Amino acid sequence: MSGQLVCVEGLLGKHVPAEDLSEVWRILYGKELRKLDLPSSAVNAASQENFEIKGCVFEAALEQLRRPRTVRVGLIQNKIQLPTTSPVAEQVNALHRRIAEIVDVAAMCDVNIICFQEAWTMPFAFCTRERLPWTEFAESAENGATTKFCQELAKKHNMVIASPILERDESHGDTLWNTAVVISNTGAVLGKTRKNHIPRVGDFNESTYYMEGNTGHRVFQTAFGRIAVNICYGRHHPLNWLMYSINGAEIIFNPSATIGELSESLWPIEARNAAIANHCFTCAINRVGTEHFENEFTSGDGKKAHHDFGHFYGSSYVSAPDGSRTPGLSRVSEGLLIAEMDLNLCRQTCDKWNFKMTGRYEMYAEELARAVRPDFQADIVRE
Amino acid sequence: MSGQLVCVEGLLGKHVPAEDLSEVWRILYGKELRKLDLPSSAVNAASQENFEIKGCVFEAALEQLRRPRTVRVGLIQNKIQLPTTSPVAEQVNALHRRIAEIVDVAAMCDVNIICFQEAWTMPFAFCTRERLPWTEFAESAENGATTKFCQELAKKHNMVIASPILERDESHGDTLWNTAVVISNTGAVLGKTRKNHIPRVGDFNESTYYMEGNTGHRVFQTAFGRIAVNICYGRHHPLNWLMYSINGAEIIFNPSATIGELSESLWPIEARNAAIANHCFTCAINRVGTEHFENEFTSGDGKKAHHDFGHFYGSSYVSAPDGSRTPGLSRVSEGLLIAEMDLNLCRQTCDKWNFKMTGRYEMYAEELARAVRPDFQADIVRE
Repeated sequence: MSGQLVCVEGLLGKHVPAEDLSEVWRILYGKELRKLDLPSSAVNAASQENFEIKGCVFEAALEQLRRPRTVRVGLIQNKIQLPTTSPVAEQVNALHRRIAEIVDVAAMCDVNIICFQEAWTMPFAFCTRERLPWTEFAESAENGATTKFCQELAKKHNMVIASPILERDESHGDTLWNTAVVISNTGAVLGKTRKNHIPRVGDFNESTYYMEGNTGHRVFQTAFGRIAVNICYGRHHPLNWLMYSINGAEIIFNPSATIGELSESLWPIEARNAAIANHCFTCAINRVGTEHFENEFTSGDGKKAHHDFGHFYGSSYVSAPDGSRTPGLSRVSEGLLIAEMDLNLCRQTCDKWNFKMTGRYEMYAEELARAVRPDFQADIVRE
Repeated sequence: MSGQLVCVEGLLGKHVPAEDLSEVWRILYGKELRKLDLPSSAVNAASQENFEIKGCVFEAALEQLRRPRTVRVGLIQNKIQLPTTSPVAEQVNALHRRIAEIVDVAAMCDVNIICFQEAWTMPFAFCTRERLPWTEFAESAENGATTKFCQELAKKHNMVIASPILERDESHGDTLWNTAVVISNTGAVLGKTRKNHIPRVGDFNESTYYMEGNTGHRVFQTAFGRIAVNICYGRHHPLNWLMYSINGAEIIFNPSATIGELSESLWPIEARNAAIANHCFTCAINRVGTEHFENEFTSGDGKKAHHDFGHFYGSSYVSAPDGSRTPGLSRVSEGLLIAEMDLNLCRQTCDKWNFKMTGRYEMYAEELARAVRPDFQADIVRE
């Protein structure tokens, strides 16, 4: 995992012969998207502040009774800004400052809804299984400094913000949760939603810190469209995506933190499949960089103790209900991806493919209810 | 849709610079697979009989208490052999002969389980919405000529055969079904399983001919492993894959018939996502070629009446639970894809990723049961 290959989609664009490129692109990534014309002020600011900026447009057919429902969505992938040994408050403040810079640029591009990466105010320290100082990064979803910071930003830019943090729930015995706070463009806290599926794989020892979320599959009606947040490991669970969609989500964010060897070949598949299967947009966001920890730890893989658990490969992207997708952001640097999308494409794709109409959910509700019973007998035909 | 690009994976292998190829391959397709060493007799026969032959190996770690459970699986993609205006019996016989040729070659390669494409004994004539002669291709799953043909083949080669046909069910009022018959390597009919989700999209007017299957998600215990058959449009429904997997399927076949403009960019995603999400192998099979019909028909797309509905793009492939996959067969020619797989990889991947353990199916059974009720209220948070 050298992290040297910056972007597969970019590399293909360079090396596939011109006469084959559009056909290869269509098969691998669906309909080719128009590039979003970004203001030069934004492009210059991004360059000065040393992050990638990229934009694409998802179009839909014109309808007679609905106007295009155009929304601009922003995805931010970033590194931690200070060494993990720095004081907690300084690490958080540095991340606040960095995100404010990038959000300012998103605002120049008229972004309406923005989502940050999973547990964005902290290093992804769960690999350590240590408590202090990491649990000190947890904050109240409603009143924490990070939520207040996001409220200011949201009001300033008239922007909806999905802010995934480590939550400390003081009113329920100081429980920790992996939570996304959704802040309205008015600056009000619209609500929160918790990570439904908790990994127990490799260095992602997250079940040490928090449990499966208890907020179900709520969807947030914002001024710009209905959104949901499926946090990280939930992307491996098709039912999780499905229930957000059944509750009406048109855009499902998937703020994540995941590393190369473990998941990189699954990354382009899962969120994109969810967009296809559920007639909605999905936004996969991964942090980037390698995070070093002071105390060594082992990874349950028979290898020697070490101080990091590999490279977060970025590669954030957006998928549309018709199966098309944007190129990914860089595998190695910070970035802002902007997707302009006409949300009418969701219902148009639904009316074409009809996966909801043909979904037979009643049958599956019954089969699943049977399957979880202790006396469940699998339906196996034997000779 | 010229059909001229033969295989995206092959093209990438040719044009991506050598120093980047393994990294690009890893990101796009997962762990690189060893090529299966095929006997030259088979390679020669395939070349003489004018079909592609390709083989790959999926390996698993050695365990202490289980021996490797190595099985060789074959996927056949083919064209119709005679014009669609030829007498029905001649068309069927020609397809029987062609499949017998290809299965003979599979037998030279020690294939244990083989699956043919959807409705393999006939042109995919459902676009016409005509009854005769197409309904004459329907046969009894238990006693039809095609099942007898497959039983002979199965016995001769000690091979399990999954044979997807148009079924006529005389004991239930002459109903038609889209059915896969599973034949044991002993030659016995092990059972049948029906297409659970029926498309109403584009020229796939299949709901004109048959209804949603009533055989649930049964799995067949064969001498070589537990298999299931998810027919065509069922690949768009993640719950369909899930229930086969919950019933114990280690290999899920997806015999299909699908065309370029409609689905080609979804094709590499859906079956592969299902292999990942369900810790099993999936085998996506698509027919190949363009089928012409005598009477013109329209396609509900505002275009002029025509005599074919586009190019079936082949591209059959196998995906493994770890997210790796084989290259596809050709987009334009007939072929036999052989995958040697150690089925121990299913449980190994399950133990690593734990999607079943973390699946929270009880919650989803309840949510789905609520979601289908007429008085269902979506969980939407408003300001």
